[in-house]
Amino acid sequence: MRVEIVAIGTELLLGQIADTNSQWLGEKLAANGIGSHFHQHVGDNHERIVSALRIALGRADAVIICGGLGPTQDDITRAAVAEIMGVSLVREDYLATRIEEMFTARGRTMAQNNLLQADVPEGATVIDQVRGTAPGLICPVGTQVIYAVPGVPYEMSEMFERAILPDLVARSRALGEKNVIASRVLRTWGAGESALAEAVDSRFDELEASDRVTIAFLASGIEGIKVRLTARGDDEAHAQSLLASEEATVRGLIDAVFGDVIFGVDDETMEDAVASRLVARGLTLGLAESVTGGLIASRLVNVAGASQWFRGGLVSYASDTKFSLLGVTPGPVVSASAAEEMARGARTLLGSDVAVSVTGVAGPDEQDGQVPGTVFVGIALGDTVTHVSLRLPGDRARVRTYAAISALDALRKALDATL
Amino acid sequence: MRVEIVAIGTELLLGQIADTNSQWLGEKLAANGIGSHFHQHVGDNHERIVSALRIALGRADAVIICGGLGPTQDDITRAAVAEIMGVSLVREDYLATRIEEMFTARGRTMAQNNLLQADVPEGATVIDQVRGTAPGLICPVGTQVIYAVPGVPYEMSEMFERAILPDLVARSRALGEKNVIASRVLRTWGAGESALAEAVDSRFDELEASDRVTIAFLASGIEGIKVRLTARGDDEAHAQSLLASEEATVRGLIDAVFGDVIFGVDDETMEDAVASRLVARGLTLGLAESVTGGLIASRLVNVAGASQWFRGGLVSYASDTKFSLLGVTPGPVVSASAAEEMARGARTLLGSDVAVSVTGVAGPDEQDGQVPGTVFVGIALGDTVTHVSLRLPGDRARVRTYAAISALDALRKALDATL
Repeated sequence: MRVEIVAIGTELLLGQIADTNSQWLGEKLAANGIGSHFHQHVGDNHERIVSALRIALGRADAVIICGGLGPTQDDITRAAVAEIMGVSLVREDYLATRIEEMFTARGRTMAQNNLLQADVPEGATVIDQVRGTAPGLICPVGTQVIYAVPGVPYEMSEMFERAILPDLVARSRALGEKNVIASRVLRTWGAGESALAEAVDSRFDELEASDRVTIAFLASGIEGIKVRLTARGDDEAHAQSLLASEEATVRGLIDAVFGDVIFGVDDETMEDAVASRLVARGLTLGLAESVTGGLIASRLVNVAGASQWFRGGLVSYASDTKFSLLGVTPGPVVSASAAEEMARGARTLLGSDVAVSVTGVAGPDEQDGQVPGTVFVGIALGDTVTHVSLRLPGDRARVRTYAAISALDALRKALDATL
Repeated sequence: MRVEIVAIGTELLLGQIADTNSQWLGEKLAANGIGSHFHQHVGDNHERIVSALRIALGRADAVIICGGLGPTQDDITRAAVAEIMGVSLVREDYLATRIEEMFTARGRTMAQNNLLQADVPEGATVIDQVRGTAPGLICPVGTQVIYAVPGVPYEMSEMFERAILPDLVARSRALGEKNVIASRVLRTWGAGESALAEAVDSRFDELEASDRVTIAFLASGIEGIKVRLTARGDDEAHAQSLLASEEATVRGLIDAVFGDVIFGVDDETMEDAVASRLVARGLTLGLAESVTGGLIASRLVNVAGASQWFRGGLVSYASDTKFSLLGVTPGPVVSASAAEEMARGARTLLGSDVAVSVTGVAGPDEQDGQVPGTVFVGIALGDTVTHVSLRLPGDRARVRTYAAISALDALRKALDATL
């Protein structure tokens, strides 16, 4: 089963936006054992979209076309797909009604051209929208198929998981492909990609002979390095068993070199790792953020049930707010002692069991004699206050995001150390 | 002159890395008036690379192929291009010597396979490397041309600017083309994509006949809708003049329907718009964030020079922090009056001239009898305190991000209203 991805939009060709959809879809397809040999980007032009679709159908079993399903004049994917199918577009009244109702529910007036999104090529199946207005389409072309989804990543990904992936898997089974692919991602923070690869190098050689299990490293930047294990089994149980065995082996190799750098599995984030530890021990958390400017708080509140354990935080950006509200000794604020005082002060101000603080220099200029990238994390666990010193790479935005995840990682380790 | 970009690498298809090269090249080509109708991603497979190049040469005047020029077994671009040209690869001794010298200069031993990088298709011109080891290639194919460059962005971009762009411009001139492309993005918040399109519908029709100016709408989700104007002029001044005139027309059409929804141009963010107004009036800002959980603060600190006007913020996630630290009247905290009290309290707590507060329900459950998506923004401008009520769509993360930009937009408008 081979799938080609065709991303639509002149803005992609002009480099005005990045095509994150093809990358996301490529990763999801691979994780499900579905191959992809080509991707294309095409502009908002009827003839060229039709031509790209014909080329794609000439070299793949299925095509996912992203974008061009909106309500404006340059949204022409529906018409291009209808031409490939050799059918007309038909206005589906129930979709039109649903789109109108969506606007009504939000108290907004609907522009008439929104109804273009209710046009469906004859013979296509609608993928209902649950996050936006433009429905997706499953369009049979002989024994092949074109899936049309909106270009908005948030809408595209939901439709892919709910409707396209199951359909692709069913088609793949119908072709007699019955390998079951299972994959697991080990999420690490604090070890470099090449060093991780070196740590599991012996395992790479052992796996070379087998075509059952593969290991890949995905540098996901601000979220650390992901180690993806993929196993191909004869059935689900076989795949899961291969995966469990490989996970144990790889964890052993990584732990032996780096210690506790694996903070989560699959979609588990660093804030999830922190949250589960706080919940398990019935502790509440407060923050004092300077250089991270609210980034840590904004990550924590995304954890479901955060209100059980997250008290809040102070973004003490101006130095004097650190002195007056957190009780930091007036003087330089980028120091280990200031970080510790901030953590102690946040615990008191917010009435939490635990508090974390971050102070540092995002750059480009030095501050308090410290070079950009210098960051101090304070941790108050009850009355015990400690700190961690960091030197982080990158520009302002990078230093901030690295500082946020590093501070959460430091808290994770501190909580484990005091069990 | 039309250029197709072909990015090589199985890791692109598997989604292990993002293809930033195609975006970068697309933008550079467009800025130089060189069109691009298609991009392709292809894996490290000889037949498929040859096939993708044939397709590209069938629909473009020139092809830029990125990647596959390194020293390993999967670097097969040279051989694929030689096949297209119908020639053999020849080892260039001077390149081999240069590559060996490069390793010697760095005190490293050279693996023999590095010499593969000295192989050149007969008839191709070498683009010398100045940042890495693999040279680039300019490969004539009849009257067409294939440019081969490394996939490392830092090496690719240097070769493009130094060798490929001048060659493309010379070829374009030889074809009698002398167009210059200029574009501008108007950034809006508060109007839907379809409604915006309807507002400028008449202009779309007028532009249909001309091939000088185009308008496109880019839904950038949490950052609102972008309206992109692109003009093709005979020279830079002409392009800029077309653009300025079109901007005035489109602004007029949008303002007439929606009022003040254009908050910025090109890279200007909502926080930039707020910052410039605060700086112009010498005002400082404080925040009290509940439902946005630090998102607004984390956006503000990304503005260069934020320390001049941003005092900080309180993330008052637990209700009792609102009562004890902000002086909110104990009771329901998702209400217009709580938002106003939070703004007043934040102004006092943080000692700022202006304060903004956000309280609301991110969902999935109701709170204080309010449905998810209900958000109140409080604004304290000096002693004058007002609020804005919002009903926002989406899941928890969406409601938060929409609430953050909406609150900044409300502040932008409030500052303008009290000029």
